[in-house]
Amino acid sequence: MAKLSDYARKLLEGKNFALLGTIFPDGSPQVTPMWVDTDGNYVLVNTAIGRVKQRNVSRDPRVTVTVVDQNNPYTYVMFRGKVVEQITGQAAEDHIDKLAKKYRGWEKYPRQLNQQRVILKIKPERVSA
Amino acid sequence: MAKLSDYARKLLEGKNFALLGTIFPDGSPQVTPMWVDTDGNYVLVNTAIGRVKQRNVSRDPRVTVTVVDQNNPYTYVMFRGKVVEQITGQAAEDHIDKLAKKYRGWEKYPRQLNQQRVILKIKPERVSA
Repeated sequence: MAKLSDYARKLLEGKNFALLGTIFPDGSPQVTPMWVDTDGNYVLVNTAIGRVKQRNVSRDPRVTVTVVDQNNPYTYVMFRGKVVEQITGQAAEDHIDKLAKKYRGWEKYPRQLNQQRVILKIKPERVSA
Repeated sequence: MAKLSDYARKLLEGKNFALLGTIFPDGSPQVTPMWVDTDGNYVLVNTAIGRVKQRNVSRDPRVTVTVVDQNNPYTYVMFRGKVVEQITGQAAEDHIDKLAKKYRGWEKYPRQLNQQRVILKIKPERVSA
């Protein structure tokens, strides 16, 4: 597991967007913008059960998360690693509210009917800036 | 080949950043920020011969280009397709200067010694907003 530098952690903790790269069933890449967060060691993103990216990582857990510094689009950090755990339930619901607060200042993320949130817990194996 | 909508073309022509997804030799995804451009039909990015992304697309031409609207980070277009041609020589040198002008206002892109530029010409097969 790669240790996160202070800069990498700062980028993940700030209001910077992540671009999550996953692998489609045919082996081609998917790239989607995401909110992002860290617990200090893992890279955390939050999606909903059944979304293409969640199905992709359930099949092939290898992902890349590229976080671009909003204050300088020429600075970014690329985290390569694996989704080692998918966390659902109250923890995932609380986590999406935390992200909505960080990025939008909202107290609650607006729920869609029957949507079940999931944290993708990503273990960074290689980090490059 | 997918036809580009007016909005997709506008995003590609504007000063918006692209995130290029490629496939590493082991089948895992790479995601890197890029300048981007279009000739109206193809998605064009410009890199240098020998870079990881250029080696990746030479092995597996399947890519995804996700362009995020700089005026609204919640709006983006994802282009899935293939690198159908790699264009080197004067056309690629002129093209990087054109991109440097568009994104930075520079007349010339600052060259690195012995660096050979290459246009990755991407045929969009699926476009989703």
